[in-house]
Amino acid sequence: MNKKRLVVVGGGAGGMSAAAKARRQNRDLQIVAYEKGGFVSFGACGLPYFIQGIIKDHNELIVRTPAQFAEQGIEVHIHHEVTEIDPAKGQVKVRDAHSAEQVVPFDYLLLGTGGASFRPPIPGLELEGVFTLRSIEEGLAIRRFIAEQKPQRAVIVGGGYIGLEMAEALHAHGMTVTVLEMLPQVLPNFDADMAGLVAQELEKQGVALYTEHGVEGLDGSGGRVGAVAAAGEEFPADMVILSVGIKPGVSLARQAGIALGPTGAVAVDGQMRTNLEGVYAAGDVAEAHHLVTGKPAYIPLGTTANKQGRTAGENIGGGQAVFSGVVGTAVVKVFESHAARTGLTEQEAEKEGFDALAVTIKQGSRARYYPGGSPLHVKLVFERQSGRLLGGQIVGREDVAKRVDVIAAALHAGWSVDDFSRLDLSYAPPFSPVWDALLIAANVSLSAWQKAK
Amino acid sequence: MNKKRLVVVGGGAGGMSAAAKARRQNRDLQIVAYEKGGFVSFGACGLPYFIQGIIKDHNELIVRTPAQFAEQGIEVHIHHEVTEIDPAKGQVKVRDAHSAEQVVPFDYLLLGTGGASFRPPIPGLELEGVFTLRSIEEGLAIRRFIAEQKPQRAVIVGGGYIGLEMAEALHAHGMTVTVLEMLPQVLPNFDADMAGLVAQELEKQGVALYTEHGVEGLDGSGGRVGAVAAAGEEFPADMVILSVGIKPGVSLARQAGIALGPTGAVAVDGQMRTNLEGVYAAGDVAEAHHLVTGKPAYIPLGTTANKQGRTAGENIGGGQAVFSGVVGTAVVKVFESHAARTGLTEQEAEKEGFDALAVTIKQGSRARYYPGGSPLHVKLVFERQSGRLLGGQIVGREDVAKRVDVIAAALHAGWSVDDFSRLDLSYAPPFSPVWDALLIAANVSLSAWQKAK
Repeated sequence: MNKKRLVVVGGGAGGMSAAAKARRQNRDLQIVAYEKGGFVSFGACGLPYFIQGIIKDHNELIVRTPAQFAEQGIEVHIHHEVTEIDPAKGQVKVRDAHSAEQVVPFDYLLLGTGGASFRPPIPGLELEGVFTLRSIEEGLAIRRFIAEQKPQRAVIVGGGYIGLEMAEALHAHGMTVTVLEMLPQVLPNFDADMAGLVAQELEKQGVALYTEHGVEGLDGSGGRVGAVAAAGEEFPADMVILSVGIKPGVSLARQAGIALGPTGAVAVDGQMRTNLEGVYAAGDVAEAHHLVTGKPAYIPLGTTANKQGRTAGENIGGGQAVFSGVVGTAVVKVFESHAARTGLTEQEAEKEGFDALAVTIKQGSRARYYPGGSPLHVKLVFERQSGRLLGGQIVGREDVAKRVDVIAAALHAGWSVDDFSRLDLSYAPPFSPVWDALLIAANVSLSAWQKAK
Repeated sequence: MNKKRLVVVGGGAGGMSAAAKARRQNRDLQIVAYEKGGFVSFGACGLPYFIQGIIKDHNELIVRTPAQFAEQGIEVHIHHEVTEIDPAKGQVKVRDAHSAEQVVPFDYLLLGTGGASFRPPIPGLELEGVFTLRSIEEGLAIRRFIAEQKPQRAVIVGGGYIGLEMAEALHAHGMTVTVLEMLPQVLPNFDADMAGLVAQELEKQGVALYTEHGVEGLDGSGGRVGAVAAAGEEFPADMVILSVGIKPGVSLARQAGIALGPTGAVAVDGQMRTNLEGVYAAGDVAEAHHLVTGKPAYIPLGTTANKQGRTAGENIGGGQAVFSGVVGTAVVKVFESHAARTGLTEQEAEKEGFDALAVTIKQGSRARYYPGGSPLHVKLVFERQSGRLLGGQIVGREDVAKRVDVIAAALHAGWSVDDFSRLDLSYAPPFSPVWDALLIAANVSLSAWQKAK
């Protein structure tokens, strides 16, 4: 009997989680993964910390090497690019580092082509010293550039998660760091008031932030970047990090007739199936069902990639798994400021057509009398009529990430602010006041709702 | 028109939360509170830290003084003991510090007599140097004793939350600390395996722990404690902290005919009403509905006292509030070890008649490659047939308290381990691995459930 074969296209978190889970689920499956870069299965979220220098060796970022996959009976080929998917014939074309091409048949295909850094249509992106950051190769190139060229002035284009993490990373190298953001605020996935708290932290740490500064182009001499032009001003730069967003890597999907969803990423159902029989997708190439809006969303994050891959792998292996969706939970550390969000911001809720109310409170992270605490800013967004919680944001210096997870759980449960206010949360003076910031926010929201409904 | 009068018996968290909320709800109510001790509305959970010395002044523990309550139109009388409640006549007898007695009529009564330290029937409890710890007065007495007598050897009788917090507090004064626990483990509200991790921390910090050492008596000379006898051994002691549990302060309730529940504490409904018209109870004197067992429970904690008081106050003031209950969430810091629990332990689940399974995992608190992380031990308890989550325990060194809150939310939602495994939790390398310890525990539980059901 011929074994069935799974071909994994792309060796990131989505693809390799699928491969690993499919193997655990089904020992008889033949599994082959192709990755056009030089690394598979690595923690991309650790790259800013690698550049910062607190992670010394890029190998620490690697979860499993091709050799380790081989031990599990998963064949991994790096520097192998899938150039074409032919769903009708059930085969892919693969080109290796020497441009040799082969045709590989598949029974199941997992599309894990990930996301790519968005490159805006501005002049100068090709100059030396201009970087994006998605791959270990790019991380190594940045480290090498810093070590060899000793840049003094860095300009970060884009104030999202990676941009701000890179601001911290380059600041740690002693550089003068400038962040240029097109929008009126950093962290576009947060409301302006909460993002403003993070902007204060940047300022406090000596990072120059210019909002409403859309970049017009990069200038340089001798092939090397020297300045960034934005909003009619020139910002001198020995190096530039371009971090203006991620777009799904859907060119292969398009070519193969794999349907895209309204977000532009690959449309998948709860089992991670695409529109084509036997073809699954997972990770930054795919959409996810958003449990608050009930619509597809494109929120490319490592957590989702891992869950989607795991779900796809279980189903490909013959199991029954459903990925129910996301609520859009994320957290970022920006120097000493931790900012977390889940669900919809006030802005997003309005855009989605909700009649939304929002409440923001400030409460200590520990009992007032217990030393070492710091203020937590909590914002809750909820629906005026039903009181249903739509989202939450927290900015503070400790215990932010796990507090937002409690709000995320509330969103999964579909709770109102009333339900949320009833939670029996842990308390001891070193960890929270007797009324945790979450409960204060819930109580204030409850009062606001009772008045407004 | 005569104003209606609320009499609050006991100035702790339950009583004073009720008074404050009743006032906010109803400006016309006359509110009088009687407290037999010298302080009202204080953070009792901070007392070990006051003794440790990291809180310098006991006034820092006070949330609101009688003068501040007076500004809100709440009359507070300290050193006033309610000696009798006459529900038929709607009046209480109150004795002040000078033994003068008065009769005070009420329309509403809030019983907030709190809990009392359990005093086991053993000889020697009256010796100088033997303390319990519930009140600011007791905290001040311990501080004074330490300052004046400079005790070198402390014995803690009882290894619960307060016992272990006091072990840390006295150790910080340079004392040799011994903990004697009657049971085979410390932290009786945890399973033995999880409590064992905390016992290791005590050992590591140089605290001597003797389990299965029930105390037989205290010895001394000149009226002063000198040793503790337990399990046939003598433990020298310059001071002794007795912390063997809390019992509800129900003597007034009994006298007045206020019904007690199966736990021995005052029975209340969701509105915090007792069996007697117009008589409410809140705080450590009262039971709470346990949302996992569906039965009344006695879990005296500050969080519950505050919520119960707030609920009672709103209802007394003419509003509509329901306290839906607790899931038994708690956390304690023992030196560098943080231990948190919610719901039922494996032991408790079995005792309650559940066919329970348990899974314990160990996972880093941060991404493997991000420095400064430490192991988190997570135990989940769930029902074999339904997969319903029954409880969770976490022991680790960071982000323990807020992680247990996510499990608490899952218990409120009534989720299965499958539901729980679907949570979209926050992730960034400084805060968790891409698979948070909670999700690893959920996934392992899910597999165990699928095999076992």
